[in-house]
Parts: sequence; C-alpha cells; structure tokens
Amino acid sequence: MMTPTTGWGTTTTLYGEGVARERLVVIGGDAAGMSAASGARRRKTVDELEIVAFERGNYTSYAACGLPYFVADVVDAIDDLIARHPDEFRDNQDIDVHMRHEVVSIDLDRRRVTVRDLEANAERDEPFDQLVIATGAVPRRPALERSDAAGIFGIQTVTDGAALRDYIVEQKPKNAVVVGGGYIGLEMAEAMKRRGLAVTIVDSGPQVMSTLDPDMGAMVGDAIRGLGCEVHTGTRVQAFETDSDSHVKAVVSDQGTYAADLVVLGLGVLPDVALAQAAGITIGITGAIATDRRMATNVAGVWSAGDCVETYHRVARRPVNIALGTHANKQGRAIGVNATGGHLTFPGVIGTAVTKICELEVARTGLTEREATAAGFEYVTATIESTTRASYYPGASPITVKVLAERGTGRLIGAQIIGREGAAKRVDVMAAAIWNEMTAEEFASLDLGYAPPFSPVWDPTLIAARRVDAAAAVSADDARARSLP
Amino acid sequence: MMTPTTGWGTTTTLYGEGVARERLVVIGGDAAGMSAASGARRRKTVDELEIVAFERGNYTSYAACGLPYFVADVVDAIDDLIARHPDEFRDNQDIDVHMRHEVVSIDLDRRRVTVRDLEANAERDEPFDQLVIATGAVPRRPALERSDAAGIFGIQTVTDGAALRDYIVEQKPKNAVVVGGGYIGLEMAEAMKRRGLAVTIVDSGPQVMSTLDPDMGAMVGDAIRGLGCEVHTGTRVQAFETDSDSHVKAVVSDQGTYAADLVVLGLGVLPDVALAQAAGITIGITGAIATDRRMATNVAGVWSAGDCVETYHRVARRPVNIALGTHANKQGRAIGVNATGGHLTFPGVIGTAVTKICELEVARTGLTEREATAAGFEYVTATIESTTRASYYPGASPITVKVLAERGTGRLIGAQIIGREGAAKRVDVMAAAIWNEMTAEEFASLDLGYAPPFSPVWDPTLIAARRVDAAAAVSADDARARSLP
Repeated sequence: MMTPTTGWGTTTTLYGEGVARERLVVIGGDAAGMSAASGARRRKTVDELEIVAFERGNYTSYAACGLPYFVADVVDAIDDLIARHPDEFRDNQDIDVHMRHEVVSIDLDRRRVTVRDLEANAERDEPFDQLVIATGAVPRRPALERSDAAGIFGIQTVTDGAALRDYIVEQKPKNAVVVGGGYIGLEMAEAMKRRGLAVTIVDSGPQVMSTLDPDMGAMVGDAIRGLGCEVHTGTRVQAFETDSDSHVKAVVSDQGTYAADLVVLGLGVLPDVALAQAAGITIGITGAIATDRRMATNVAGVWSAGDCVETYHRVARRPVNIALGTHANKQGRAIGVNATGGHLTFPGVIGTAVTKICELEVARTGLTEREATAAGFEYVTATIESTTRASYYPGASPITVKVLAERGTGRLIGAQIIGREGAAKRVDVMAAAIWNEMTAEEFASLDLGYAPPFSPVWDPTLIAARRVDAAAAVSADDARARSLP
Repeated sequence: MMTPTTGWGTTTTLYGEGVARERLVVIGGDAAGMSAASGARRRKTVDELEIVAFERGNYTSYAACGLPYFVADVVDAIDDLIARHPDEFRDNQDIDVHMRHEVVSIDLDRRRVTVRDLEANAERDEPFDQLVIATGAVPRRPALERSDAAGIFGIQTVTDGAALRDYIVEQKPKNAVVVGGGYIGLEMAEAMKRRGLAVTIVDSGPQVMSTLDPDMGAMVGDAIRGLGCEVHTGTRVQAFETDSDSHVKAVVSDQGTYAADLVVLGLGVLPDVALAQAAGITIGITGAIATDRRMATNVAGVWSAGDCVETYHRVARRPVNIALGTHANKQGRAIGVNATGGHLTFPGVIGTAVTKICELEVARTGLTEREATAAGFEYVTATIESTTRASYYPGASPITVKVLAERGTGRLIGAQIIGREGAAKRVDVMAAAIWNEMTAEEFASLDLGYAPPFSPVWDPTLIAARRVDAAAAVSADDARARSLP
C-alpha cells in the first residue's frame, strides 16, 4: 500500500525543473540513522528527497559489537569495524553526511535543528521536513566521584575502543578491573586477559551474566574464572582511587580494594534522549523514546530508531529498551520505508542475545525465570545436556539447553543455551518458535536438520522441548496423556 | 486426554495376580521400532504390557547415517554407531528383543505373526494385541544383471557398512564407482576418496545432489570434483561387468565404461512394505504404508513408523516417503504414546535435510523449484551471498542462501543453504518459519541471535528473506510499497 509523502513541514523547496523536494534530516550516523538514510535513498532519488545526516563523532556505521575483538587484537584495524564511511554515503548515495557535527536542539514548531560544527566551533540552523532521531546510548557510569578519571573507560563508540587500545599499548597497564559482568564486561575481560593483563571482574549481582538464569550464568562464571580472571560477585563499587596525576589506581568496593591502572565500565548503556526530551517528544516508561510500530514518534514526520528507542517485547507484552545493532538496523530500515511513503513495521523483539566467552557459546531468547515471573507467567522449566553433533562424530561437545514453558498450555516462553562450537545459533530456531507462540509439543515435532556432523538424531532443542512439555502438565492425568520425555 | 487401552485383540492374558496383560509386537529393531517399544515401556509396566521385538539383522537402534563416517575411519568402531544394544532393552526395559528373527507373515484375523529364527532355521507363531510395523527400507538396485555381484554394495544397514569396510581393508580395491550422486552417494564417495581410492560418481540426472536446485547443486558438484572425484552426470548405468570370480570389474554406461573393483549403490531406498502389503494393510500412493497422524494403519491396533511409512508434507500438502532417522524416531515415539492410551501426533514433515560434503555444509528445507511447481505454487526466488560471521571476525566464510516464496503473499516455501562451518544448521530457523507459514516480510523482522563470532548484523537468512520479499511483489506499486531489499 502506498501512502503518498505529502508536506510534513514547511521547507519543501522547488528544485531543478520545479519538482518539490523534501528534506530528511538524520541525527546520528551509526546503524539506525544510516540504515534509515540508505533505505530512504533506495526509494527516492536525490531530486525527490534531500537527505542530510549529522554525526558528532568521527565514524559512521560502525560495529560497536566488534570492539572487544579489536581490543583483543583479533581484529587488526579499526577500519575493519566500519561498515561504511562518510564518503561512501556521499559519493554512492547522495547522502550529505556531516561528521563532527552535533545537533544541540530540535525546534519542532519551526521544523529546524540547531547544529554545532565541533571543528569550527560554530552553530547554525538546518531545516527539515522529516527528522530521524538516532542519538543512541551512553555508557552507564556509576554516580561516584572520579568515575571519569584517566584510565577509566566506558565502551560504546569506536572512538572509545580506539582510545582503550591505545591506552593499553602506550601505558602498558598491568591490572584491569571490569565493573559489571554482562556481555560487554565479560567480552572486554577476556580481551584484556588475552593481552596479558591481570583482570578482576566486579559485579553487584549474585552472578555474572545476569541476563541468564543463575544456574546457566554460573557456567559462564566458571569459564571466565577458568581463563584466569578473578570474579567478585555481590560486590558494590564505592569509589575510585587516583594517583597524583589523576590516573586511576584502585577500585574500592564494599568487599575490598582492587589495584587497577585500567578500569572498564561494563554497566550497560542508557538511551540518549536528552535532545528528544528537550524538544517535547514523548519518552516512554522505560526512559527511551516511544514510537509506534512504524517507528514514528508522537510528532508527525519525526521518527526514531536504535539504542535510544523503546520497543515492544512480544512475550513480556511490555516496552523494553534493548541496545543491539541488529534491532537498530531493522528499525532504521523501517523508517527508510515509512518516511518515503511505504509501510513497514518493526514488530518488536523477544530478547534474543548471543555471545562467546572463551570457548563457550552463550545464547538466550524469550524470558528468563525472573522475567517470566515479572511478566505474570506461571511457568515450568527443563534443562537437558546433550551434544552438538552425533556423540560418535569427531568434535561432538557438550551443550546445555534450558527452556521455559507456560504451565498448562506448554507454550514456549524462553530458552537459554550454553555450549561449545555450534551451540549458540541453535537459539534462532527457539526464537522462531517463541515468536510464533509454538507449544513445546509442537516444537518437539519440528522437522529440523539432522546429520551426524551437526546434531544427534534428536536435536538438543527438541529434547529440551520434550522434557518441558512433560513438565508443563497440570495434573497426573494430563501428565499421563502428554508424551513423557 | 486419555483413551483407555481396551482389548484390541484376543490374546490378552491373565498375568500374575490376575491382571490382564496386553502384548505389543514390534517388527524391526531399528530407530522406529525401538522408539515405539521404549516409549510404550515408559508408560506401561511389564505387568501391564508385554513388549516383544523381532529384528532380522544383528543390530538394534543403529545410526545408519553414520555409516559413511565409519567407512571413512572417522568413526573407529561399528559399536560407536549402536545407540542401544539388545541387552540394554532386555535388561533395562523388559523389552524382549529377538535378534536374527525375521517376521515372514502377519495374520491380522488371528492376530499372529509368523517368525523365522534365522539361526535355528525354524518358524513359529507369535500372538499380538497390538503390532508395530517398522520394516524400514531396502536399497534401490538397478534392474540390471549382476547388480548383486561381489563388490557391489548397497548401504542401508550396519551390516552393509561393516561388509563394505571389511571389503576395502581386505580386498584393497583401487577404483570405486558410486552410482547415484545424492546424500549417501556423495558421502560415501568422499569417504572412499579419503581412504585413497580413485572414485568416480555416475548420476543419470543433470547434476549431483538433485534434492537441491541445479544452481545450488552445482556448488556441491564443484566441491566433490575439487576433492579429486570424477563426476559423470547425465550418465545411465547399463550393465556391470564381472571377472571370472563373479567380482565386479567395470560399470558400463551410455557414456562410457568405468573400471571398478568396488561399486557403491547410492540410488536411495524403497520402503519395505512386502509384509504389510501381503497382510492387507493399506499402502499409500507413494508406495509406502499409509497411516493417520497418530501413525495408525487402517487396521485397529496396528501401527507403522520409519522408512516404511508415508508421511504428510506440510508445504506440498501431499504424502511423501522420506527415509530419515529423525522422522523414524519421532514417529516411533508417537506410537509409544498412542499404543498405550495416550495421544500424540506426528504432524508431518517439510523436507528438511542437511549433509556435509568435504568442507561444504549443505542444507535444504521446504520445497525446491521443481517441487514448488509440482505442488502448484507460483513462486519467486532470491539467492544471496553473505558470511557466516561478521566479515571482520576470524573464520568468517562464505555462505549462499536461496529462498523461495509464494508470489504475491510472500509466504516462505523453501530454502537451500550452502557454506562452510556454521552454515547448515541455519536451515533450522527457516524450517521453523516455513512450518509456521511465515511470510518473508515477517521473517525479515525475526529477533535472531547476533554477535560477531556468529553472524553479520543481518543474518544471511534475514537478508535472503528481504530479497525474496521484494521479489514477491505482483505489481510495480506493490514493489514500491514493499520494503526494497
């Protein structure tokens, strides 16, 4: 269905042979913003739509998820992490990208943004018909003195990653403390350990990897300890000590003081909504920008995507704010279509995430036990051990699959997987099942790929589904009628 | 729901303290039959149900799919391929397994089978209340003279595999010809090549791996040629030449004669329905035994599962006969439940299959182009190239994904994947999508696992879905409204 793009704003200009040309302004030159810009360009020529993007940093479209591998020297050059450079957008797509330009305010009435050229230190106004707010996120920092001392790094942008690697190479720190034991914290811990630093991980929770259930997270904790990292859980950071040069020298916690000439903050990120909030755009209950399924904000012609927006969790049935490049890309793509008269929705997320810690592949989708309880589910769980390949096939290695199903109905609502090579991406089939609201019984019948190099004759995910189906029985009769595991 | 198991037959006996005990007889001791037996035992004690299984061969519950790896010496011992031995069934589950016992006829009126003890060369009758027919399949052999000459092997049972490996070790053949370039043919070709034989593959079709579309199959052909195998497609075998000892010495085709002191038949298998057919059990249009969703034949209390049955193809909406251990296990499991008063259906298949040829992982699910046409679909295709991991992450390797979608609706109806490590099992998420009748647009929004060691930010399957969604447009307007790839 086509919705004609008609005058959102007031700046539509006559261009060339008298064709009205709209102006799309994009704030933020990373995944979400540039996906929107590229998508819009694929559907509208430069004669139909002017596209201008402002990025306060030095890079466009970079892979922040790749930073731990850059710090570990697994990826050699920072350039490898840049999917597309500003010149490529300008030369190949007529997208007018301005680097080191920070949008400092949005005037929705006059359809203008105020932009500061950080190099020239000068401000100017720029008009828009449609606007994409893709301001991303900022690392969460503890509300402690000296948390921005030299040697303390948040890891969010390519610039952050480059600064950290330079610091390691030039300052040769010996003792790193990672604050926060989530994905980025553990990935950075491993990266620094591989570079020869002594690494201590401090987490306030009862376990690392708190996005998994404790029983599964414990396996990740064991792996990171096995690599030689010290792990202190249930430990709250209280202060940073610095030396006379204002360089960090220790992390003080309620459990003890840890020497540190390098600190990496792995406390997650917060949506960067200051600009949008100041302009009067609606912020949702998660603290991120609220949009509809088409990624439209409450203001006509103003869209938002990426780490700064909230999105719908299809299992929990509530808004969530999840900072992940894969969501940012999909949301940006939807804007590219919707801002140019098409119709494409971003239907939400189900909390899928994967990572690799040491040789351990770690994956989750749907809800954990804590999340299921919070979402009002009565659930059962099953955890099974199997192998990634037929047991007799070389390279078969252990895999643990935990699944959650709604009690009674047997509807699958969550899965967690830990194992070696070939384990993590098995979460995708569970994600597709949860997305489609399949029951465990239905899932156990799925026609999945079987051959000895890839799977036992019952794929581990199918075995887990069988077990949880039996567990979901609400009575002895029900249990008897259900297939036993 | 419970359906009480009430007197199917006439042989229910008083047992022990006067409890009526039923008798379940299983014909065939491999995956389907023994899954049924085990499943039934998990639900009924030996006081409630006597379970007797007859297997004409020497092994129970073996992994026929593992035979190529045994022949290649990747798997050392034949015993590694045996999931469970007869003694384990007898000692742990009170399942009375009789090896080297061939059922030679079924008398449905008198509820008896006639069994020949192949060692004692004696026949006897055995009564049943319920019967499981799991007679499996037999290798398809060309209707040519001397096709059972010494040195010509069909590969279906563990006994076949052991005989082939013994032959290779003892006779030291130099030139192997594989007739048929499907899964088993190519896997065996690779196995023999790795053992140092010269290998020639002869296939009557225009390509090897005809279960894929020609464009995808060609990539597999290139891989097997790259390993040093000769491949002759469009080549029909016309005769086998033998020496004075009746050993095979050459394969004669319409394109030439190929020296061969070893021939492996990889022409697929035929369902072994002779017993069932003779007893009057309904055979379906595929030539395999017809059952309902519960795996019940047309005769009350007589069930069938495994390579000998036909099953419902959920996309093609017609019966198919597909010999795969994973289906056999699931079907057998359903019988175990249904024959003991429970209710469990086998809801059909969608044609998923995976294999590994050389370093190439090969996968398919749903329909190929030829199959889609035969099933009455108007379809579009998209084929994309991507990488198995983020392009900057070590070990990222090429992956090709081809998808088929129904024109107009965009419903996904087929997928084929070829690539290196990490490619094949991606077919599972496409299988789950096809199973749930997702459209390409819906699929492109799926929340799949993303991290650099596992995937580019857009998983290759998502990219393929985007492309085929655009291709599915039925008009220029429709194309414009759809998200462009």
